[in-house]
Amino acid sequence: MADNNVYIFDTTLRDGEQVPGCKLNTEQKIEIALQLERLGVDVIEAGFPISSPGDFRSVEAVCQAVREPVVCGLSRAVEKDIEVAAEALKKAKRPRIHTGIGTSDSHINYKLRSTREEILERAVAAVRFARRFVEDVEFYAEDAGRTDNEFLARVIEAVVAAGATVLNIPDTTGYCLPEEYGAKIRYLKENVKGIHKATLSTHCHNDLGLATANSIAGVQNGARQIECTINGIGERAGNTSLEEVVMIMRQHPYLELDTNINTRLIYATSRLVSESMGMPVQPNKAIVGANAFAHSSGIHQDGVIKRRDTYEIIDPLEVGVDHSKIVLTARSGRAAIAYRAKNIGFDLTKDELDAVYAQFLLLADRKKEVEDQDLQQIITGHRAKAKTVKKASV
Amino acid sequence: MADNNVYIFDTTLRDGEQVPGCKLNTEQKIEIALQLERLGVDVIEAGFPISSPGDFRSVEAVCQAVREPVVCGLSRAVEKDIEVAAEALKKAKRPRIHTGIGTSDSHINYKLRSTREEILERAVAAVRFARRFVEDVEFYAEDAGRTDNEFLARVIEAVVAAGATVLNIPDTTGYCLPEEYGAKIRYLKENVKGIHKATLSTHCHNDLGLATANSIAGVQNGARQIECTINGIGERAGNTSLEEVVMIMRQHPYLELDTNINTRLIYATSRLVSESMGMPVQPNKAIVGANAFAHSSGIHQDGVIKRRDTYEIIDPLEVGVDHSKIVLTARSGRAAIAYRAKNIGFDLTKDELDAVYAQFLLLADRKKEVEDQDLQQIITGHRAKAKTVKKASV
Repeated sequence: MADNNVYIFDTTLRDGEQVPGCKLNTEQKIEIALQLERLGVDVIEAGFPISSPGDFRSVEAVCQAVREPVVCGLSRAVEKDIEVAAEALKKAKRPRIHTGIGTSDSHINYKLRSTREEILERAVAAVRFARRFVEDVEFYAEDAGRTDNEFLARVIEAVVAAGATVLNIPDTTGYCLPEEYGAKIRYLKENVKGIHKATLSTHCHNDLGLATANSIAGVQNGARQIECTINGIGERAGNTSLEEVVMIMRQHPYLELDTNINTRLIYATSRLVSESMGMPVQPNKAIVGANAFAHSSGIHQDGVIKRRDTYEIIDPLEVGVDHSKIVLTARSGRAAIAYRAKNIGFDLTKDELDAVYAQFLLLADRKKEVEDQDLQQIITGHRAKAKTVKKASV
Repeated sequence: MADNNVYIFDTTLRDGEQVPGCKLNTEQKIEIALQLERLGVDVIEAGFPISSPGDFRSVEAVCQAVREPVVCGLSRAVEKDIEVAAEALKKAKRPRIHTGIGTSDSHINYKLRSTREEILERAVAAVRFARRFVEDVEFYAEDAGRTDNEFLARVIEAVVAAGATVLNIPDTTGYCLPEEYGAKIRYLKENVKGIHKATLSTHCHNDLGLATANSIAGVQNGARQIECTINGIGERAGNTSLEEVVMIMRQHPYLELDTNINTRLIYATSRLVSESMGMPVQPNKAIVGANAFAHSSGIHQDGVIKRRDTYEIIDPLEVGVDHSKIVLTARSGRAAIAYRAKNIGFDLTKDELDAVYAQFLLLADRKKEVEDQDLQQIITGHRAKAKTVKKASV
């Protein structure tokens, strides 16, 4: 794989599915996994096998369903977790065990009640143990975002030596600013012996709305895998949105970074995940929200009608949305009215447009959205009246 | 105002309200404006007065309702627009006219069908004309994100000389990466004569999920006003979320940037806007989403129960949410069960916890979320059975 290729590690079925209300049954998980395979993700994190018998079965089923992507199972740095993950992944064509432990002082002191030295040992032991079962072992340094860079580098160097193939540097609490997170990745790239033997991975949470920017800062500084979910679902405020990072790289070719994603399947995948989980996508969600390609202000509508890219950087077709939308509201201008009137078969003269527009505004102040049939009524009403007036004046 | 103070310019009632389905009546606009005043925003953009008679009346009404914030009305660089905006703002205690024009080649060539020189003249003329009515005139260079920096600096220098007090540099299409947008602001700060006499302002759209990161890059590089909306609503994928930028500055004191926002009113304001507009906030929305402070995985629950900041950087109370939530799902661990059991009055022994946990997992694999009453049933059922067994063995 070329140096400018960024792997997409989708964790919709693990970090996404663990969210309140998002639970899926095994059939739904298989359906989503197959869609992710069509979408072109490189890795599917299918679950956390030791967490429950249902989750174990789902990971097993996903392994049997997909052929192309790596299938990954989560575990803590605990032998029993790793054994169970290995068992669940047995039938995967390309299995990966994802194991790790908290490395920040907050996690070490208060959650794990341990010491840095002990954590380092447990990290190495977990990776070694996982390598007994599979060749592809990803290590996560939980709360890496708040971990001192020097200690983090020591841990990473030790787990690479122990056989880790992928290194996940999570901003677990969503605290980092993009330049901070980027600098952390660059620090590891520059200071860890043997780092070229493994792939650095981003895993950013969205508690402050920065997950996407942080992930991009990560790959600009040397990471080559992004962990993300469809619609940005995940613990608390969620994870990085797959659709956002993929389209940022696609829209900025000078970054010289790209993925294997077939972007035309993005919208359909978003709908499938939202509907299966009963997890709504807000209308103003980037790329996959209902309004992402809707134009309502008069200034914007006029611009888009003249030339799409005045206000739209992405062609909606590119992400599988079939058209941009010109919505008629009280903020619409004459250009939008003329455009929509033409679409429904009326070529308005300048005088007609003035008259129709005045009536349209009165209606639009009362009604949130003016439909084509309202517009049609205004136009035919106006023409009928004009005809009568003309007749009367003859 | 100190140098590290960032003004919050809320455009919920203009950029937010122009969105399909978000239309408000005058009473609703007044209610929201009063809430924004309590929240502590510095500027309220109340509408686009020339766009419709209803919008004109709403801007007038907001001017009469609020006392503290500046009230701003939008206009194009057209005399009639500016006159009407000035008329609507007449009763404002602190009125501001917001006027401007497209400066990118795309806007000049295709939307405005004009030339750079003509645009420069129209920009200056509009600012001069607006200054006849009010002292506070904000100029927007539409599509500044895609405008060549050198030409942008010429326009900005000319409008500052013409009397503009605030300079809005919009990333109209949401295309910029944070370092690009930050560099643009820095370029203006360093290259525009007289720039110290005015305030640079960010206005970022969220088409690629970068509005928040771009706004923060803007203030890190010298901007001192952020244009934003509650819940990030706005044209297409929306605008910068007020709650996100405010909390980023509050959570990163080393940036030495802060706002006048009373963060404890954030959640209530989010609910009011969402309900008035019928515009849902997705559960995984940062800070104001229903799940923003919910913890469901076992690992996370265990951490948060031991110490809140293991997985939570913001105390929910700080943004007006009354508690973080431990949700019981198939991903919950023993620590969460013991914690919730205690909350509802049961102190479980280790053996009891093992037995209750096994039964809990069976139920959780079938049910998305296990409620307190389910847990109570499991516990009382287990205790009743244990009693019988004990009796039998006596």
